[in-house]
Amino acid sequence: MKAILVIGDGMADRPLKELNWKTPLEAASKPYLDKMAKNGICGIMDPISPGLPPGSDTATLALLGYDPFKVYSGRGALEAIGSGVAVPPGDVAFRCNFATVNDDLVVTDRRAGRISNEDASKLAETLQKVKLEESLGVQFVFHNTIQHRAVLVLHGSKLSTAVSDSDPEKIGEKALEIKPLDESVEAEFTAKVLNELMQKFHEALKEHPVNMERIKRGLPPANIILFRGAGTVPHIKPLSEIYGVKTACVGAAPLVRGVCKAAGMDLVDVKGATGTPQTDYMAKAEATVQALKAYDFVLLHVKATDVASHDGNFKQKIEVIEKIDQMLKYLLDNVDLNSTYLAVTADHTTSCLTGNHEGDPVPLVITGPYVRCDDVEEFTERECARGGLNRIRGRDLMPILMNLIGKTEKFGA
Amino acid sequence: MKAILVIGDGMADRPLKELNWKTPLEAASKPYLDKMAKNGICGIMDPISPGLPPGSDTATLALLGYDPFKVYSGRGALEAIGSGVAVPPGDVAFRCNFATVNDDLVVTDRRAGRISNEDASKLAETLQKVKLEESLGVQFVFHNTIQHRAVLVLHGSKLSTAVSDSDPEKIGEKALEIKPLDESVEAEFTAKVLNELMQKFHEALKEHPVNMERIKRGLPPANIILFRGAGTVPHIKPLSEIYGVKTACVGAAPLVRGVCKAAGMDLVDVKGATGTPQTDYMAKAEATVQALKAYDFVLLHVKATDVASHDGNFKQKIEVIEKIDQMLKYLLDNVDLNSTYLAVTADHTTSCLTGNHEGDPVPLVITGPYVRCDDVEEFTERECARGGLNRIRGRDLMPILMNLIGKTEKFGA
Repeated sequence: MKAILVIGDGMADRPLKELNWKTPLEAASKPYLDKMAKNGICGIMDPISPGLPPGSDTATLALLGYDPFKVYSGRGALEAIGSGVAVPPGDVAFRCNFATVNDDLVVTDRRAGRISNEDASKLAETLQKVKLEESLGVQFVFHNTIQHRAVLVLHGSKLSTAVSDSDPEKIGEKALEIKPLDESVEAEFTAKVLNELMQKFHEALKEHPVNMERIKRGLPPANIILFRGAGTVPHIKPLSEIYGVKTACVGAAPLVRGVCKAAGMDLVDVKGATGTPQTDYMAKAEATVQALKAYDFVLLHVKATDVASHDGNFKQKIEVIEKIDQMLKYLLDNVDLNSTYLAVTADHTTSCLTGNHEGDPVPLVITGPYVRCDDVEEFTERECARGGLNRIRGRDLMPILMNLIGKTEKFGA
Repeated sequence: MKAILVIGDGMADRPLKELNWKTPLEAASKPYLDKMAKNGICGIMDPISPGLPPGSDTATLALLGYDPFKVYSGRGALEAIGSGVAVPPGDVAFRCNFATVNDDLVVTDRRAGRISNEDASKLAETLQKVKLEESLGVQFVFHNTIQHRAVLVLHGSKLSTAVSDSDPEKIGEKALEIKPLDESVEAEFTAKVLNELMQKFHEALKEHPVNMERIKRGLPPANIILFRGAGTVPHIKPLSEIYGVKTACVGAAPLVRGVCKAAGMDLVDVKGATGTPQTDYMAKAEATVQALKAYDFVLLHVKATDVASHDGNFKQKIEVIEKIDQMLKYLLDNVDLNSTYLAVTADHTTSCLTGNHEGDPVPLVITGPYVRCDDVEEFTERECARGGLNRIRGRDLMPILMNLIGKTEKFGA
């Protein structure tokens, strides 16, 4: 017995006036999701707890069975390990942006014109050579990921995650001085290191040939690195140890990949998977079917529903849902339904109206040979609320799936 | 976006034979509550946990989002601050009754003939002048509230809430000696102070001119003060700090007002609001609409449903429910429904049969612009159980409402 969990990031929504008070899931044509609802057991699920808007990182931790209140330790390290950069225990990692500032350090473009991977790689190579004062006893790894995105990992013995961000998160404001967020010497020290690094990076970038060339081409120079989301890798027991299963993640979003990596899952690389609405949906579906041959549990994550929601683009959200439906058709056609449990849910509600993650529950369906099918016929927020699973919490999902595939142990006698 | 939470105290019930096995909510005519059910999302809610009968204090704490197991610290201080008597941290407060005892200190009337506010005020004035031995280092405030009810606040450095009550809670029994409930010096000391105070109060009252006059008029003298419900003010973070909202309570019951005060809510005084079935319902509805202009969240509490239930008076309970329905008509007619979420629930089930708070869940409806309406058409215990909220806990309600009005913060990224 094996299991696939399909997560549509931010796929759940609230009723929208423009859709005649339907949600995108209710408005979409999704015969295979509905078929699963008909043949499976449905319910609603609070990813973390009712009313609490989760991040994709905390929600995915919960959906994998962990208690995010206990194990979550910031975004930076998850994003780093999801991008293939190691973050050993004790190291503190940050999400970074290549950005553009003027002479007064006022941010004029938070993404340096969505700088190309090629330019960013060249700049990153230079930055990696920047020397911190030796007496600090800190080493760092700086690694660009996609376009303007990068990660920074600090290695040393006196580091803390209790530091503020330098990213003001809006244009027209100065890059911020990093400040300690508690009274500890470690926080003060880490802030000092980061401020020094920000300054040295800025110096190394501002007259860099790549930037001189960019200015010539009329492009904004990537002349500063903004840091945010200090984090360490969560100390969690791998799923393989908890359930004795081999697990893999098919997904492109670095943050979700990082969570899966932290949970000891193998990351499957899929050509054409981009974490955007233009991702290669079918390539991911195919990769999932392939992975299921070698793994007991495969998480298939689609970021695009969330991207469309944050943009308030409900039409695109509907299109993405319909593409996810096609992925499910492929899965249903290509896995052995006698030995596979297939679950579909969202990691949280993202409202196309507010453009934010919201605290409403998400729909959930589980199909497979021995589930107690209910009479729900549509995979929507409201129909699933009538389902046989009633209302569960995100942390309940993994034990339910692992139990269905025979991987849980009895508690008691 | 703003929110109103209407709480019918003990409004939920069990089926009653006399109502052809309907509950009072099922038997009442309440077109506006039913309209809300039709237009909203319904569910059932365990105020604290399934089967546990909550008090109005613990339940209201939970409905405001707090964990009563962690923060509840006795009824006395809540009742005191709800009556306008300050209880600084460390002080221990008690609910008190003016009562009548015979020469053997046997209680003959626990309410001293429901003594008038006027008589009680005169007696309280005398009692406030009673001197405790200076060496004890304890000061006190004694304040009469409504009729026979009063509060006592002890101020000192060695006080404890671990003391028994002097109120035997039935007539025909002697006023009880107060005993320490644990081994601490503080509990022993507090019991000693209270016994001394009970004795001194009794001496000050028994030949008081007010009581001599009462005896002449054939009324029972208020010749003793009975103490119960030792408590301190709970250490809780105000709602304003948790959610960044301005909050107010429209309600007359001192205990519920006290909980709201402890949560940092402003208390709205309403002329004619009495906490009884004869309260001025419409004045409270009007005050709620007024308050909503200045506050983000208004709690409207009606005590009368509980009063009727404790008396086993199901006919009166139905009448009160129908008056609450009229309040809701007023609210629906007078608030901007495009920007207001309106929720109705009970703080607990009170059975007209047993006359007690019971552990059954309560019905809940939430209406407002972006809720996921379900197909429930009546606001009753049983119909709401089919609703889209399924079954939640009291502590979930506040995060859900605060999320709907955009006042929750994302956990994670």
